Amino acid sequence: MTDGADEEVLLPSPNPLHLPQSPLSPAFVDPNSKGLPWVEIGMDIMFKYLSANQSTGAYTLLTKYPPGTQIPTHRHSGWVFGYTIQGKWTYLEDDFVATAGSVICEMPNSNHTLKVFDDSPEDMILLTHQTGDLITFDEDGELMAIDDAQTHLAQYLSFAKYQDLEVDESLIALY
Amino acid sequence: MTDGADEEVLLPSPNPLHLPQSPLSPAFVDPNSKGLPWVEIGMDIMFKYLSANQSTGAYTLLTKYPPGTQIPTHRHSGWVFGYTIQGKWTYLEDDFVATAGSVICEMPNSNHTLKVFDDSPEDMILLTHQTGDLITFDEDGELMAIDDAQTHLAQYLSFAKYQDLEVDESLIALY
Amino acid sequence: MTDGADEEVLLPSPNPLHLPQSPLSPAFVDPNSKGLPWVEIGMDIMFKYLSANQSTGAYTLLTKYPPGTQIPTHRHSGWVFGYTIQGKWTYLEDDFVATAGSVICEMPNSNHTLKVFDDSPEDMILLTHQTGDLITFDEDGELMAIDDAQTHLAQYLSFAKYQDLEVDESLIALY
Amino acid sequence: MTDGADEEVLLPSPNPLHLPQSPLSPAFVDPNSKGLPWVEIGMDIMFKYLSANQSTGAYTLLTKYPPGTQIPTHRHSGWVFGYTIQGKWTYLEDDFVATAGSVICEMPNSNHTLKVFDDSPEDMILLTHQTGDLITFDEDGELMAIDDAQTHLAQYLSFAKYQDLEVDESLIALY
Repeated sequence: MTDGADEEVLLPSPNPLHLPQSPLSPAFVDPNSKGLPWVEIGMDIMFKYLSANQSTGAYTLLTKYPPGTQIPTHRHSGWVFGYTIQGKWTYLEDDFVATAGSVICEMPNSNHTLKVFDDSPEDMILLTHQTGDLITFDEDGELMAIDDAQTHLAQYLSFAKYQDLEVDESLIALY
Repeated sequence: MTDGADEEVLLPSPNPLHLPQSPLSPAFVDPNSKGLPWVEIGMDIMFKYLSANQSTGAYTLLTKYPPGTQIPTHRHSGWVFGYTIQGKWTYLEDDFVATAGSVICEMPNSNHTLKVFDDSPEDMILLTHQTGDLITFDEDGELMAIDDAQTHLAQYLSFAKYQDLEVDESLIALY
Repeated sequence: MTDGADEEVLLPSPNPLHLPQSPLSPAFVDPNSKGLPWVEIGMDIMFKYLSANQSTGAYTLLTKYPPGTQIPTHRHSGWVFGYTIQGKWTYLEDDFVATAGSVICEMPNSNHTLKVFDDSPEDMILLTHQTGDLITFDEDGELMAIDDAQTHLAQYLSFAKYQDLEVDESLIALY
Repeated sequence: MTDGADEEVLLPSPNPLHLPQSPLSPAFVDPNSKGLPWVEIGMDIMFKYLSANQSTGAYTLLTKYPPGTQIPTHRHSGWVFGYTIQGKWTYLEDDFVATAGSVICEMPNSNHTLKVFDDSPEDMILLTHQTGDLITFDEDGELMAIDDAQTHLAQYLSFAKYQDLEVDESLIALY
């Protein structure tokens, strides 16, 4: 098995065209679809659930907050990628000013208190693609909730039902 | 070390407030900054480089394509998260129609040919947060290039220089 | 900028040798080093902390359990890769029998109760490379602890100190 | 929808027991199974393929090299986690000496030349859990191959067939 000729045969192909295609097609979501309504989660905050990947724990949310909103301090166990669609916000723990178009990359295991500026010209809309748990504390520092891709999906569906809004689950990308 | 009292002492704290904060602040990028100009990469395609994480290989690009653009088939070794800021596009291998607001989640190891519709009402602008290599083939299926977070950053800087555009590298998030 | 000659210049290089090297050298850990002692965490369970990556939240642990050990049910928010160095174990929720050499890949967001078989021929030693939170529940299903890369490192160092064992922190790979 | 009572109802549950279980059971692999034979890949190097995750591109390999083996320089687009089961090796670009039990964590986008020491007391056996592409160059720096989770699986199966070794594909964890 180890003479030159055989080794030649055994070497992997150098032709990148021979790389096989993933059996998984891209998952495409149109958040403007009628079947993906804004759902209220409390405090006049609205959200839409767009995707969840059960193998990575990554999921996608659209969240909408009125000017002046401050949400309870939370901590992510995974990374977060965020894109600001409109409005003006920051984390109380940091000093950036995010506006339409701003991108944020967060490292695992950091605590944040999201604050929409009182003078935000419109509701703040944030798109996040994130992994892991989101752990929320109340004002006294007591644990309020542990959430993840699965609980956020369950919330979206149950809050929609409670608010008589119809969700077409088939529009949500489940990987 | 194993009697009850000691075990009590040894148990991890149940208070999530004791979870230490990540030493890494969020990386914030404003793509509208003067110091992050659109740079032409050929075929009237423009791009901006926003972030790179050397520990994960994840990086963020903004790309702008004229209506009708079709780019060479490429393959990603990692996953891709994309958000359509404006315009209308698809992959020739799939049948979705992405418009402003559309989200796409791609699995590792798939080949795609991005096509902006001829009737796209404006340039197509795509934000991607992606990992791994991007391998590009020419029309004959021959390897053209292997790119990643590092080569895309190098391209952005060198093309900007060649086009007499000033980049403020400190605005790019390097994790 | 868009005539043929320029486009030629602008195309990315097809030579993979031009791919720049990561500035981060591999992180190498020898768990047999004197400076990385086994530390008791309670219930005669010992552990060593080997690596943590602050950008991914991934970290590496060596854990040693006496035959018959059953640890409280826990849930991981990220994925887990495990390699059994010695001993015989399972999860009560599943039906595999892991022995020396066995590999386990766990998906995010699953709950497990690790049980070392009473007839395990020796202590069970498990190497895990894992991401995200580890959430532990007591027998009544109440939250006991939320742990991650950072809390596990802090535990390793403080338990070692409490047990008069010297840890050489410089041996632990911090990315 | 925004008076106190409703908000109370809308708040996420603080009970972590309500976190739903992942529908994906852990994937368990016993590399000592008859159905997972060592397969020769050339240069007297043997390998076994243990797992692949199509959503993350992560996969697991066992590789066995005779003392003195030096393999062509390669580059990973993703991260690599490695555990040395036996033998003694290094990367020519670094200065560590890995022996039985050693752990290595590699960052994306680094080039390495694996060398098993001539005086390795036995074949070197390495377990790796890795993501992304593996790009191999020949001695003149020319591209030899681009490989990933899918091509490595295909190689394992085809080399086994060529060598009249039976593989039980159902033993390989496909996520």
